[in-house]
Amino acid sequence: MTDRRPTPISAEQQGAVDLLGVLAYGALLAFDRLAADARKAPSLAERVHVAHLAARQMAHFRRVQSRLAELGTDETRAVEPVRGAFDAFHRHAEPNGWFEGLVWSYVAQGIAADFYREIAAFVDPLTQAVVLEVLAEEPDDDFVVRTVRAGVRADPRLAGRLALWGRRLVGEALSQAQRVAADRPSLTSLLTGTGAEPGMDLAVISQTFARLIENHTVRMRTLGLQS
Amino acid sequence: MTDRRPTPISAEQQGAVDLLGVLAYGALLAFDRLAADARKAPSLAERVHVAHLAARQMAHFRRVQSRLAELGTDETRAVEPVRGAFDAFHRHAEPNGWFEGLVWSYVAQGIAADFYREIAAFVDPLTQAVVLEVLAEEPDDDFVVRTVRAGVRADPRLAGRLALWGRRLVGEALSQAQRVAADRPSLTSLLTGTGAEPGMDLAVISQTFARLIENHTVRMRTLGLQS
Repeated sequence: MTDRRPTPISAEQQGAVDLLGVLAYGALLAFDRLAADARKAPSLAERVHVAHLAARQMAHFRRVQSRLAELGTDETRAVEPVRGAFDAFHRHAEPNGWFEGLVWSYVAQGIAADFYREIAAFVDPLTQAVVLEVLAEEPDDDFVVRTVRAGVRADPRLAGRLALWGRRLVGEALSQAQRVAADRPSLTSLLTGTGAEPGMDLAVISQTFARLIENHTVRMRTLGLQS
Repeated sequence: MTDRRPTPISAEQQGAVDLLGVLAYGALLAFDRLAADARKAPSLAERVHVAHLAARQMAHFRRVQSRLAELGTDETRAVEPVRGAFDAFHRHAEPNGWFEGLVWSYVAQGIAADFYREIAAFVDPLTQAVVLEVLAEEPDDDFVVRTVRAGVRADPRLAGRLALWGRRLVGEALSQAQRVAADRPSLTSLLTGTGAEPGMDLAVISQTFARLIENHTVRMRTLGLQS
């Protein structure tokens, strides 16, 4: 083995690498979650459908991997700083059964996608293209919406449990996003512009979070659930 | 919902549908197994590698799905008759830890691929092309061989455990293949030619199994393990 030192990364590229790291690890954990959910599907057709959704996460991962290589780094290094927050989210928001798994994929991936989209506006055009391309292919909302609505029709008690679950997910997601924002100034400075005053940062971040919560409310309503 | 009756399938097509059913369910279960193994990987790079292998199984599944649709059926109907044998195999041969998982994917997928290849010689050309295309992309042997050999070098006691595991896998695989062969005359008659005498069938099947065991022995040797 030769000693291959990483190419130094410019300060402005660090934000892009951080975003790609978040996207990569998010895809890997979504793959895990969806693969586990597939096993809980009540029918073979649904199992196959969710397994395909899982596989698609790895296609996203591959695209992010290529962009990281172009930026002179790799997924192992890019993912390291954000692993803690993601692992905590997945540990604290473990779905229980088929329907909670579906709501998880819709709600958590929805919030994540909104968050990535907000940040993608501020990275270099090539990274932005990769992020938007991956997001454009994102979740098969129709399948989840149809299945959850049918589930609630068949068992109305499910509505309350899933509404609670959605609230827990958004709370946990925002608390972990805050943790990433605090740990990675390179990401937050993308949102707020470098050199902004600390108080300013906080205002921009809370506006971003307000938009994330608004979109979340719309998603819960689409599922036929109270937010 | 309109009542969509399945197009009747000719006797000669039934063998092709059975083979595709076996291939489809095999891919789905391999997806499950590899996705579970990915979580046990000691490094992020290995985790990503195995998750990509899992995702590839779903690409295979999709190709088999299309061919089944062309034959006027679908995966749910094609998979039904072979589920029992496959589920039993997976229940009886549950790998314990990272290395047993790698040996599982190498050995079980290797035996399965040999079996499919034997049968593919006798189905219609379009189905044959799909099967061979899927098999051509099959396992990333190099990664497994390198990783298992390095594991045994680092901990020589692993060799005995993995050799035993390989023996258990081949025994279980052949016993389940025999079950499928007994349950699905449409498949075995492909191997033996329709109308062959029962005694003849047995001879051809045991020759096929002898070839599968021979190839298995070569694979175990490649892994640096006794068969």
